Amino acid sequence: MLQVEDALAAVLSAAAGRRAAASASAAVPLLDALGLVLAEDVRAPDPLPPFRASVKDGYAVVASDGPGEYAVIAEARAGDDALGVVVTPGTVAYVTTGGPIPDGADAVVQVEDTEQVAAPPDGTKRVRISVRVAEGHDIRNVGCDIEKDLVVLKSGEHLGPAEIGLLATVGVTAVKAYRRPTIAVFSTGDELVQPDTATLSRGQIRDSNRAMLLAAAIQHKCKVVDLGIAKDTEVSLKELMDAALRSDADIILTSGGVSMGDRDLVKPCLAKMGKIYFDKIQMKPGKPLTFAEISTDDTARSSKTALAFGLPGNPVSCMVCFNLFVVPAIRLLSGWSNPHLQRVHVRLSHPLRADSHRPEFHRAVIRWVLDDGSGRPGYVAESTGQQASSRLLSMKSANALLEVPASGQTLAAGVSIQAIVIADITSPPLYKQPAATTTSLLPTHFVS
Amino acid sequence: MLQVEDALAAVLSAAAGRRAAASASAAVPLLDALGLVLAEDVRAPDPLPPFRASVKDGYAVVASDGPGEYAVIAEARAGDDALGVVVTPGTVAYVTTGGPIPDGADAVVQVEDTEQVAAPPDGTKRVRISVRVAEGHDIRNVGCDIEKDLVVLKSGEHLGPAEIGLLATVGVTAVKAYRRPTIAVFSTGDELVQPDTATLSRGQIRDSNRAMLLAAAIQHKCKVVDLGIAKDTEVSLKELMDAALRSDADIILTSGGVSMGDRDLVKPCLAKMGKIYFDKIQMKPGKPLTFAEISTDDTARSSKTALAFGLPGNPVSCMVCFNLFVVPAIRLLSGWSNPHLQRVHVRLSHPLRADSHRPEFHRAVIRWVLDDGSGRPGYVAESTGQQASSRLLSMKSANALLEVPASGQTLAAGVSIQAIVIADITSPPLYKQPAATTTSLLPTHFVS
Ligand SMILES: [Mg+2]
Ligand SMILES: [Mg+2]
Repeated sequence: MLQVEDALAAVLSAAAGRRAAASASAAVPLLDALGLVLAEDVRAPDPLPPFRASVKDGYAVVASDGPGEYAVIAEARAGDDALGVVVTPGTVAYVTTGGPIPDGADAVVQVEDTEQVAAPPDGTKRVRISVRVAEGHDIRNVGCDIEKDLVVLKSGEHLGPAEIGLLATVGVTAVKAYRRPTIAVFSTGDELVQPDTATLSRGQIRDSNRAMLLAAAIQHKCKVVDLGIAKDTEVSLKELMDAALRSDADIILTSGGVSMGDRDLVKPCLAKMGKIYFDKIQMKPGKPLTFAEISTDDTARSSKTALAFGLPGNPVSCMVCFNLFVVPAIRLLSGWSNPHLQRVHVRLSHPLRADSHRPEFHRAVIRWVLDDGSGRPGYVAESTGQQASSRLLSMKSANALLEVPASGQTLAAGVSIQAIVIADITSPPLYKQPAATTTSLLPTHFVS
Repeated sequence: MLQVEDALAAVLSAAAGRRAAASASAAVPLLDALGLVLAEDVRAPDPLPPFRASVKDGYAVVASDGPGEYAVIAEARAGDDALGVVVTPGTVAYVTTGGPIPDGADAVVQVEDTEQVAAPPDGTKRVRISVRVAEGHDIRNVGCDIEKDLVVLKSGEHLGPAEIGLLATVGVTAVKAYRRPTIAVFSTGDELVQPDTATLSRGQIRDSNRAMLLAAAIQHKCKVVDLGIAKDTEVSLKELMDAALRSDADIILTSGGVSMGDRDLVKPCLAKMGKIYFDKIQMKPGKPLTFAEISTDDTARSSKTALAFGLPGNPVSCMVCFNLFVVPAIRLLSGWSNPHLQRVHVRLSHPLRADSHRPEFHRAVIRWVLDDGSGRPGYVAESTGQQASSRLLSMKSANALLEVPASGQTLAAGVSIQAIVIADITSPPLYKQPAATTTSLLPTHFVS
């Protein structure tokens, strides 16, 4: 049976082949580009600041003048204020944060270090400067933040809010970015009924995988196509696979129909439509995961090709496989240079029994604590409980998959193992929030 | 000057007061609820599985029969297959993964432990069972995954893909969830021009904060209202504040106009429209942050109230304040029980000079490495470089803010300090990807 790392290598290699197809992209408006990967280098057409700018509200001075009372000959707040004015020794100009420094001035004295002088009857303004500042003090020179022609963002960089701000700064309001992959999803199984079915007849269960996979794909910034439920027949499966290809899907996700039953027809369907890379993996859960590349049987001109994952029908297996294999494929198609999942080391908060035969991906909640048991800060991991692959509750609130090598041994509490992060951990996990250890998580100098 | 923790307490207390207003919510369709916080408990109306179900593809047997050749009296794949059939000693029924177990059978033998027997001429099917299994083997009993009436999701839980799947499983296709807060954003400043301005006149810069804040709010799942740029006049500011209130914003974000200049009119504008909680914080960057609660001056009936943040105009200060103060407010309004930002401990990969007067929030990239310098795995932090508050490049790729207490001292490389996580770290950071230490990040048993 294929090892997980070999299966992942096969997925990434196939995804890399499809990446070119996915990358062609028209320019995307700025806010729509949030979360995407940039597909071009972006240069600054002008320096920032484009003019000498004041760091403070205060007075532009000739530094060598020093403390004393001075005439305020101009007020340069923004725009073309004080354009043409020259600050000469013995004079100053009022300036504001970010505003232009008039010619002749070579330093800024902040308003806190000055004193208003009662206006003389002739209407001129005067100010008392209390301190001596060095030449250049509180002046941002032209280009000190961004030099003209600097590449501010490189192709391959991820566009978050700060990067969107940078694009706006350099006058770019539409960018080339890797496009969002399209993911088509359908479930398979004669036992499945729509989630809104109030009363189940004998033998029926509600289709949960489809909503879950659509949500997961949306979370990973994909466009999604919901194709419903296929019956356990060759015709029904083929029909929905064709519909998925017609929808221009980059990735097709099915769930169910990949085990050993005589109506498990997903594998033969994929085999007929293309190339199966693998159909079984040495892992728990997720053993029957199947991966293929399939195409329409149309003429070459209109032929469509997609990566197809035959995910297991058990919802936990389905979701674990999505995280381990589909997410890296999505990332690669989306332009990420490193599609791998983040791993961290965690200490077990309780003993954990390893499977004898297959490496296990044990659902857990990891939390950062001041003492992970070693006397130092670190992540501790707590199992989400009973791990049956049909028990979706074991995925609930899980933010990590513990990688438990197949040893058949019991790992003791406190042992350090690797965990794959599967949910955003920019926020504290809510699972078992009121537990005693959580209070130690409270920030040391922030009150709650 | 107010300390950061006191300012945050003021923000959270005001946000808590506005939470009720934000929480009223109609039922949200399943996929739209992704990322929201549930505002009701959800119970399972029926058990899962709703019938005794097979864990494997194979044969439902009477366990006490043991190995031997048996007549296959039914095929129970899904739906009402084999309804009414009773497996009696000496007979078996074909079953599939997840399919119903016919009455009378008390165990399942997987297909791998059976052998097809050549069909006799009468058309009946027979199978050879090779192993003896215990009663209950490979059968999921009714409700073993989810008991009837179990609360599968509690009010306050976050809805990720697994939770969406759980909702579908229990037949819930629309849920009450805390609604997304609405955030209205405008920039202030006579020096600002639209980002698409190709050529800047003297004294002008492009407005970057607005796009950045809109993107940040979208990233935090808010609805956004873009109100453009206000001039540095009382009238213009009041006009856009009123427009923000009319847009039903829960939170109003402005940037600029809060420093010491004579055209910094945001504070007086906020003071006239409501209550200012604070207008200066002991922090770097972000000192001039102003926070208020403001209302329309209409009659009580139609009055609108919103939290208003007067963010500093320097883009870095703006974004740091957004992360430290606006994000927790958004989280509280969005129903989070713990709105705080996640902190982890990191070791510095280089010396860092602390400010003498103000605690600093130093932009950095943190990475998980196998040896953080202490001989153990952990996070290391690398500064994004020159930290001028006008230099947005220092926010680029930053995934953390290092909390550097005001000591005036230089922290040595290898020192452990706290970092606030500000970007998703479910993926490895891309900053300085080709650095030597990054290779040690490669998963130990996954190939790349
Ligand atoms: Mg099936
Ligand atoms: Mg201003």
